[in-house]
This record gives sequence, C-alpha cells and structure tokens, in this order.
Amino acid sequence: MGDGSTGDSQLAELTARVAALEGRVQKGIADDRLSLLVFSGELDKQLAAFLLATTAAASGMKVTMFFTFWGLSALRDPKKRAKKDLLGRMFGWMLPKSSASLPMSSMNMGGAGPLMIRHLMKKKRFSSIEEMLAICAELGVEIAACEMSGSIMSISLEELIDYPHLTVCGAATFLDKAADSRVSMFV
Amino acid sequence: MGDGSTGDSQLAELTARVAALEGRVQKGIADDRLSLLVFSGELDKQLAAFLLATTAAASGMKVTMFFTFWGLSALRDPKKRAKKDLLGRMFGWMLPKSSASLPMSSMNMGGAGPLMIRHLMKKKRFSSIEEMLAICAELGVEIAACEMSGSIMSISLEELIDYPHLTVCGAATFLDKAADSRVSMFV
Amino acid sequence: MGDGSTGDSQLAELTARVAALEGRVQKGIADDRLSLLVFSGELDKQLAAFLLATTAAASGMKVTMFFTFWGLSALRDPKKRAKKDLLGRMFGWMLPKSSASLPMSSMNMGGAGPLMIRHLMKKKRFSSIEEMLAICAELGVEIAACEMSGSIMSISLEELIDYPHLTVCGAATFLDKAADSRVSMFV
Repeated sequence: MGDGSTGDSQLAELTARVAALEGRVQKGIADDRLSLLVFSGELDKQLAAFLLATTAAASGMKVTMFFTFWGLSALRDPKKRAKKDLLGRMFGWMLPKSSASLPMSSMNMGGAGPLMIRHLMKKKRFSSIEEMLAICAELGVEIAACEMSGSIMSISLEELIDYPHLTVCGAATFLDKAADSRVSMFV
Repeated sequence: MGDGSTGDSQLAELTARVAALEGRVQKGIADDRLSLLVFSGELDKQLAAFLLATTAAASGMKVTMFFTFWGLSALRDPKKRAKKDLLGRMFGWMLPKSSASLPMSSMNMGGAGPLMIRHLMKKKRFSSIEEMLAICAELGVEIAACEMSGSIMSISLEELIDYPHLTVCGAATFLDKAADSRVSMFV
Repeated sequence: MGDGSTGDSQLAELTARVAALEGRVQKGIADDRLSLLVFSGELDKQLAAFLLATTAAASGMKVTMFFTFWGLSALRDPKKRAKKDLLGRMFGWMLPKSSASLPMSSMNMGGAGPLMIRHLMKKKRFSSIEEMLAICAELGVEIAACEMSGSIMSISLEELIDYPHLTVCGAATFLDKAADSRVSMFV
C-alpha cells in the first residue's frame, strides 16, 4: 500500500479494463434510433408506422423506415409513370396507386372502411398519412425503398413520391441500421 | 514510473473515462423489459401477445403491453357501456365486444375457427386470454390503451375491463418504454 | 496530490466502479443476433423472414428463427406423416402441407398470387424459401419449432423438415434469445 510501483501496475491493469469496456460499449450500445420495416400495404398498419415514426422523430429519436413488399405501394406517386413489361403493368394495375388508395386489414368494406377512418381522423384533427409524410420530411426521417421488392413488383424509383431523404437499398443496409437501433419493429 | 504525479494525472484521466462510460451505459443499456405494441384484434395474434407477456413476466422481466387500433377490442368489457355519437355506436357495434369474440386471422370459418382453438387450448390445459389477463394482473404486467385509437373508434376507458395496472396513454409514452426495453415487438 | 495513499484510495474506488460497469455491460449489452418470431404462415411474410435471416447470417450475425402458430406450416415436410387424432387430422388437412403451398396475405387470387411471385422471383434470380432454408442450414441459422403450437395443431417434430439445427422449444427459450439480441421482430 502506498507503494508507487504497485499503484502503477494496478493503474495499467485498470486502464486496459477501461479500454476494453470502451470498445464493447462503443460497439454494443444502440443508437437512439427507431427502425421500422414497413411490410404491410394496409392503411391501418401504415398509419401505425407513420404515427410511430413521427412521434419518435418529434421526441428527438432518429428514425429509419424501410418500405418493402406491399408497403412499397404507399410510396407510389399516382402522377408518375415508368416503362414496364407485361407482368410489371399487371402489378402496377393491381397494387394501390398511392397511399391515398390503401385498403384496410379489417373492416375494409369495399373501400368504405378507409374512407370512414380518414373522415374520423380528419374530424378529430389527427394527421393523414400524406400530412405525416410531410412531417417526416421536415424532421429528417430516413425513408428507404426495398430494392428487391421494387424489382419483383416492377416499381422503380422514378415512380415514387418526391421525398428529400428517399433512397433505395437492400435488406443488409436496413439490418445494419436496425442492429444499431434501440427499437426495431416489423409492421 | 513510480512517480506520484504521473500516476495522479493518469488516474485523473482514467477517472474521467470511467465517468463518461458510466454516463453512456446508464443512458444506453436497456431495462430488462418486454414492450409489446398490440395492434391486431385477432384471437391468434392476441394469444401470441399474451403468451409472450405472461412468459416474460413469469421469468422476471418487466412487461408493457400497449393496445392500439384493432387490438383495443380485446380490452372491451361487454357489460360496460358509454355514451356515443352515431359513428361511435357503429364502431361499437362492428368491433368485437370483448376478447371472447375475437375472430382469427386465418381459418376463421365464420367463427368456428376461434371456437376450435379455444376448445383445443382448454383440452391441452393452456390458459385462455381471460386467464392470461388474470396472470398478467398478478405479475404486474402494465397494460395501456392507446388514447388516439380510443378517440377514433370511440372506445373510452369506462368501457374497458377492470385491470389493476390499466392506463390510457399515447404513442410517445409507449415509445419511451420501448426505447428502454430489451425486446420490443409489433403484434 | 502526489500522495501515494490518496492515489491508492482513488484507485480502489475506481477499480470498484470499473467492476460495476463490467457487470452491467456484460449483462446489458446484446449479442450480435437477430431473433425472429415467425407467426405468419403466408408466403410473402415467410419470404420476408427468410430474407432477413439469410441476409443477417451472411453478414456475420447469429440468427434464431422461432416458428409458431401458422408459421409452423412452413416447416412441414409433405412426405412425412405422424399418427393423429381426429382434430389433428383436420388441422393437418386444412393447414398448408409445406412451404411450397403457403398462401399470400394479399393478392392470393386462389393460389395464382403465390405462383406469380414464385415465377417472378425465379426469373429475377432471387432464392426461393426452399433455397433459403438450405442457405440457413449452411450459415448455422437456428430454427426452433414452438412446442405449444405443435401441441395445439397436432404437428409433431417427426413431421417437420430435415434441418441440421432444428429444435423444439417454448416461448421462454425464445424470449431468452430475443432478450440477448440486437434485433427482434414479430413477423
């Protein structure tokens, strides 16, 4: 005790332990980020995804939304067109043309359900998907379209909505973000 | 080496690094908690949510369940009533009156599917949703009803089941819990 | 300052703080693992699950897939049989016989949808579920079948596909893995 050289070796050992901790913490502690894999193309689930995204972003979290499979329809711009082969045109015709024409997962009632929900949300002064997209853009929410889904369903970037942070990427890029997020969800 | 003042400055530097680590770990390491966003109102998905919740709580994890959109129906008490406007009465009439009348996402067969699943679960001595709710109450599972969904579908707290830890809150409160959870899922 | 005994007590205090941090970090930092609860038995959602699993495993993450409820059908081997009671035979007859006969959650069109998706994926040279299962086996993805779901739907291990890392377990075992994962999702 009180011997300088013992103190030195203890200090050296402790320094090594702290460095090891710093490495683990650096690698292991997630970013303050919400990552959403938006698979579903139904109005109700898309609403849930956008509500989570805007709420998280408004409270200061970083947010990534990855639109894949049916979810991609919500990013289609009905005014834009792209050249497609026959199957691509079939898909384009069968899938919702934009977020404004998404069906519901329950109580769709031939389209009456979505109209009713939209009417009620407006009446109660909640934002629509289109309004939440604008809020997302303002708050810097990253939106990515799944490359593979676009390829399978013949939906190309040139058909998608104008959005400042829109990219096209693969599942690996999304998983990277998700692995570094405090919350990840499959919607 | 062995020089007190060098040791002092190393010690001071190390102390600062440890304090920084403590701060990051405090902020960054999640609570031993499971957070479930229960969106779906289908019997099979609700069963999955309650099985996860009771299993986690039984093994000592803290658990939060946030019921939103169709999921809210599982919390309705068929014996309770609330005053509603016309659209609210329509919703109340169309949505399941309680967990006992939830449909299934597959093989619903006009209500025969849920009866069959309930029969089989009883025969194999698995708990029903109603029994799992009682287990949740005992184990301290926090159940929250989504304020916005309640507002849109005109479901108020006074119509919900008696549950000791039941609250009404918004998505921001849920996200706070989820950000501090080891596991978060959208069911 | 420069006093050995002050240094010693500071060192002792710091050592205790570092040990506490090590404990918290050890317990609190998640493994580099993706845990998927595969609840859905629809082709599109199963594709999403297998795409996530193979992508994560290919990039070096550990991966656990827990197949439960309808998801279990994707693990059935149509060539294998097991003795069942009447309700078990009914379930066996109604559920998809293997991953090759899964329906879709949208645009099923009496089975034309799955054929179309399979055709398109083949044409664009994406792997089928059956090919991804082989990749999973090679990359060491752990696949577990839910014991309780198997019991309810009378699907036993002897009816499931040959897979090198296949086990049967309960929700508690899955939650343990999920609690120690960087990303957990309910598909």
